Amino acid sequence: MTATQTVAQQSATDRAAAPQREPARIDVPAVADALLGRWKEERLASRKLVEDPRLQTIPGQPMPEHRERALGQLGILVEEGAIQRAFPKDLGGGDNHGGNIAAFQELVLADPSLQIKSGVQWGLFGAAILHLGTRTHHEKWLPDVMSLKLPGAFAMTEIGHGSDVASIGTTATYDPATEEFEIHTPFAGAWKEFLGNAALHGQAAVVFAQLITKGVNHGVHAFFVPIRTPDGEMLPGVGSEDDGVKGGLNGIDNGRLHFSHVRIPRENLLNRYGDVAADGTYSSAIPSPGRRFFTMIGTLVQGRVSLDGSAVKAMMAALTIAIRYGSERRQFPGPDGRETVLLDYGLHQRRLIPRIAETYAMAFASERLLTTFDEVFSGVRDDDAHREDLETLAASLKPLSTWAALDTLQEVREACGGAGFIAKNRVVGLRADLDIYVTFEGDNNVLLQLVGKRLLTDYAAQFAGGDKAALAKAAASQLGDRVSRFGLRQIGQSVADLGQVSRSVEQLRETETQRTLLTDRVQTMVAEIAGAMREATKDVPKGDKRAKATAQADAFNAQQHKLIEAARAHAELLQWEAFTEALDRFDGETLRVLTWLRDLFGLGLLEKHATWYLVHGRLSGHRVEAITAYVDRLIGRVREHALDLVDAFGLTPGMLRAEIATGIEAERQQEAADYVREQQAAGTWPIHEKQLRKQQQG
Amino acid sequence: MTATQTVAQQSATDRAAAPQREPARIDVPAVADALLGRWKEERLASRKLVEDPRLQTIPGQPMPEHRERALGQLGILVEEGAIQRAFPKDLGGGDNHGGNIAAFQELVLADPSLQIKSGVQWGLFGAAILHLGTRTHHEKWLPDVMSLKLPGAFAMTEIGHGSDVASIGTTATYDPATEEFEIHTPFAGAWKEFLGNAALHGQAAVVFAQLITKGVNHGVHAFFVPIRTPDGEMLPGVGSEDDGVKGGLNGIDNGRLHFSHVRIPRENLLNRYGDVAADGTYSSAIPSPGRRFFTMIGTLVQGRVSLDGSAVKAMMAALTIAIRYGSERRQFPGPDGRETVLLDYGLHQRRLIPRIAETYAMAFASERLLTTFDEVFSGVRDDDAHREDLETLAASLKPLSTWAALDTLQEVREACGGAGFIAKNRVVGLRADLDIYVTFEGDNNVLLQLVGKRLLTDYAAQFAGGDKAALAKAAASQLGDRVSRFGLRQIGQSVADLGQVSRSVEQLRETETQRTLLTDRVQTMVAEIAGAMREATKDVPKGDKRAKATAQADAFNAQQHKLIEAARAHAELLQWEAFTEALDRFDGETLRVLTWLRDLFGLGLLEKHATWYLVHGRLSGHRVEAITAYVDRLIGRVREHALDLVDAFGLTPGMLRAEIATGIEAERQQEAADYVREQQAAGTWPIHEKQLRKQQQG
Repeated sequence: MTATQTVAQQSATDRAAAPQREPARIDVPAVADALLGRWKEERLASRKLVEDPRLQTIPGQPMPEHRERALGQLGILVEEGAIQRAFPKDLGGGDNHGGNIAAFQELVLADPSLQIKSGVQWGLFGAAILHLGTRTHHEKWLPDVMSLKLPGAFAMTEIGHGSDVASIGTTATYDPATEEFEIHTPFAGAWKEFLGNAALHGQAAVVFAQLITKGVNHGVHAFFVPIRTPDGEMLPGVGSEDDGVKGGLNGIDNGRLHFSHVRIPRENLLNRYGDVAADGTYSSAIPSPGRRFFTMIGTLVQGRVSLDGSAVKAMMAALTIAIRYGSERRQFPGPDGRETVLLDYGLHQRRLIPRIAETYAMAFASERLLTTFDEVFSGVRDDDAHREDLETLAASLKPLSTWAALDTLQEVREACGGAGFIAKNRVVGLRADLDIYVTFEGDNNVLLQLVGKRLLTDYAAQFAGGDKAALAKAAASQLGDRVSRFGLRQIGQSVADLGQVSRSVEQLRETETQRTLLTDRVQTMVAEIAGAMREATKDVPKGDKRAKATAQADAFNAQQHKLIEAARAHAELLQWEAFTEALDRFDGETLRVLTWLRDLFGLGLLEKHATWYLVHGRLSGHRVEAITAYVDRLIGRVREHALDLVDAFGLTPGMLRAEIATGIEAERQQEAADYVREQQAAGTWPIHEKQLRKQQQG
Repeated sequence: MTATQTVAQQSATDRAAAPQREPARIDVPAVADALLGRWKEERLASRKLVEDPRLQTIPGQPMPEHRERALGQLGILVEEGAIQRAFPKDLGGGDNHGGNIAAFQELVLADPSLQIKSGVQWGLFGAAILHLGTRTHHEKWLPDVMSLKLPGAFAMTEIGHGSDVASIGTTATYDPATEEFEIHTPFAGAWKEFLGNAALHGQAAVVFAQLITKGVNHGVHAFFVPIRTPDGEMLPGVGSEDDGVKGGLNGIDNGRLHFSHVRIPRENLLNRYGDVAADGTYSSAIPSPGRRFFTMIGTLVQGRVSLDGSAVKAMMAALTIAIRYGSERRQFPGPDGRETVLLDYGLHQRRLIPRIAETYAMAFASERLLTTFDEVFSGVRDDDAHREDLETLAASLKPLSTWAALDTLQEVREACGGAGFIAKNRVVGLRADLDIYVTFEGDNNVLLQLVGKRLLTDYAAQFAGGDKAALAKAAASQLGDRVSRFGLRQIGQSVADLGQVSRSVEQLRETETQRTLLTDRVQTMVAEIAGAMREATKDVPKGDKRAKATAQADAFNAQQHKLIEAARAHAELLQWEAFTEALDRFDGETLRVLTWLRDLFGLGLLEKHATWYLVHGRLSGHRVEAITAYVDRLIGRVREHALDLVDAFGLTPGMLRAEIATGIEAERQQEAADYVREQQAAGTWPIHEKQLRKQQQG
């Protein structure tokens, strides 16, 4: 097998030779194509890089060597023209935002350290200059950023403030006498923390700080601050501490930065959204400090889009490994004396097959997110509504996919037993590296809380003006006017109708029934939370703002857990919608199997949340039992297509690099079976005492 | 703070000075004492070792150095007299089986690599010689095993066979001409795999192989096989491969061993349960080959007992870290302007507080398991029934605690944000090392399946003789006569009664209501599975053994997922019982708080399995909602005692070694608050633009 021949091609060949297989098969290349999506070319180019041994992880490499290797790998990416896509065309880039992220996502299978270090350099440091700076900044710094002549850090997070960026302690105080800003971290909590490129390689940093001029704090802004000479000497007033060993991503030199009254020219303020004149006068095109802050922070959404797709990629790799191994590995003799293939065990199927469905749903949702991102960042649809939509979609999907990646990697690790724990089978390394994906670029729970707040806002918007009739009308349409593409959905049916649609298990397979049940859950959860919060504040005396704020905060806190559950339900609905929409592209046996897979995903959600549906009277106990039975049947059907479904992920041996996914187990099984057969033929196979006793007794 | 002063003492002092705390507090030393249990002395002695820097993990240490360090650490354990407890007194041991395991469990907080490498040397290699060998073997090898002069491997698992030990491919063929066994691995699948001490340090191995003499295979037996010279040269016919880097435990030199017609003296058969005379005649005191096999394998239970308690220890460490950090760390301003402590967030409480309850339940269950283990291995209650009980209890608890440890470590990692990912905060290292605990010493799912089979056997035993009246009578007593201590429980109430007991939410707090609901679930699940299996085979023509076997296997496979769920439910019941039993030791406020904690555990189980209770008509939707509301209330109450509850784990800074658990975060918060206060006092604190706009508008 050549390095570029895909596992799909190889196993298609293997199975073409196996006459016992059912003839009806999915169209693997068509599915593979759909999964590659709109930026197929960029993805395939990036996959070539993933197959380049120079860019691949060396398991167990000590941290110092791994860090140097990762830096060298960034140089290779530059040489290969792999990182320029998102930058302006006239500066050597490609103005290709979607393609840039698509290619970036693939890199996770080379080495997540390389991926994230390149993300720090070009996706954070470079992108901050691009999106928060203006033309002068672009011309001055981007060419060196792109060529890696200027490695940099993205200094936003502080020891004391992670998710709450607005409260950071670093200050940038303007001095009109010298026309300089003074960057200062006045206490340990204000030290910048967890920054890639900070411990060793960064020569500059985009530093987020409270902009203070004329005695007024204008909130968080970004500044370009040189930190090190090209020889690695810290510049005066700048200090660095090494974060040392981490749970993964040890190819990245994360560290802390602190600044003691470091002076930078006024022009180093990245001034796209706010500027300071020579005399210290502050100006901004966005009058509201709150909106200005969120606009600046909004440019960070690409990190979330990147991680979402990377997590899906890791799930694809993990499942390809586990399904291939589970299709070959045998353990415990069956009734016919031959040992049973792992994937024929009911439990093994329950562990792995629903995750294939989940991975498909997340892959299609991820493509939708990437398209939305590209529309906004390319300027095709760059307005507040679309930006808000993009943020909601990213904040919905990134938490679920990054968590699912960890869960899937762990389940695969365990499903492969001890072999799953050995680094050369790849799974543990990916899991260790991806661990941090669930809390960086937005802590998953904080992101879901943002989504939850958006849902509450959408919900409240229905009542704006207090027109109940308008509400009823909006509710009757599939998508209310005020509700945008990725916000709260509306369904027309009343609760009573919902009871009806689920009366028959046949109906549960219908797309619209699944949609209704999933949508209703989000809608009802949000309505309940809104109701509870209204209830909790209704007795506060009018005009007592302080008491009202406290009551609101307490009520919100009491509902926090439920709000995050509602956001999760909303994200699951978005995934289900993306999967359902993708079905349009297929026909014949492929459509049939992918519809089973979509049903498995949809009904799996109903099964997972059965308590809610039971408590709310949406499903009866009998229906819930029927769902479980039907999920079992779907798993059995999909099992026959499991190898094809993972083959469609299109991952070559050079991308997987997992010994147990190479067919080695089947070879060993064959060798053992041949040995036994030869011994039996030669009459040298010993009789077992158990058998002997039976013969003697019989 | 001195290294030996516990966190408990330290924070008790801190809080004594804080007058705002409620006066009613739990008796931390009394709880700590109960958690230390029967082998308190051994645990405390082992904790001293954990505090010895020579025995502690160095994060990021490259694999080769870590392996050498771990070997050296075993030498330190020998010097400190830490490993001799389980061995015979007259050979320098202590005949103290429970104390040995208790001390071993504590070592996980030094370095899990050190722990497991010592487990390989003394708990597997040495214990196999002790339990499967006879006096001559003990005298010949145990002194050198104990002194570490003879490092060894435990060669049971093969590449081709992990959980299914009975099917291993290695053979030991007796040759009467030379009175030798020939050890042979005839194909790659028979190579011994994942063995600690195999890649580098082992000089001998206890090798499990099919014993063949006079043309008969007498099944798996254990043999003492020299493999390396003290200089590290492989002996003729023995080959070794290094497993290389793993997901964790990289201080252990795991590897493969293969044997090409390696000859060992007849006396190297560890012959406690089966022997071969000079002429090749096989003899055993246990006539049934099946029972003989399980008796030999049964001695391995101590590995499971060890891992169970180690997992609980890791949970204690993780929760101590997260609760201490979460009690200091603040993020996002509350309504009063001050930032909110993480542990005051509803979600943060939901993530961590129920895990404290789970850890207590598992700790008390673990102590019960250890006591049972000691009774059997010390000979106090060494009969078939007690051995079977011990195996059931170990197979029930080890899966749940090792999985819970991974989940808890991960939740703690995420709850500590980026800080949780930094190695110096300890959590990621423990998680990586403990990953393999869920599949070694018995894959968790395979163990739960064993428990499930035991439950089915207990269930069927009720019907032995077909006496329905006897069944009814047995069911009416709390514990049927035929049912032993850790097997299937019986409750007297009928299903109709169960509907009654849960009518009032008040009643759900009652011990007997929780017991009934938890017991009923296991009992009903097992009955349903048994019924489904009976149903599936009833149409098979009588006498068609093959068809019956196939139908049975298919039915079992279809029920496998549910059977494992039933086993899990049984294990949860055993944990709940152990927690409930432990409440007897407390009184006053301590009893009150620990009862809340037990209720949180019990009601948490009902909440987790609410779908089952709803579908089976055991709880109404209203009751399920009431349970969730009450769980929320319990979490709020327990939150006030969270620091005390983790203090009672008794872990010193030297055992935790997590920077974020040292109070450093509170210091940083103080420094930042002081800075702001000083600036405000000096009039140099800038007004925020938001505030300015309000003033201008107002």
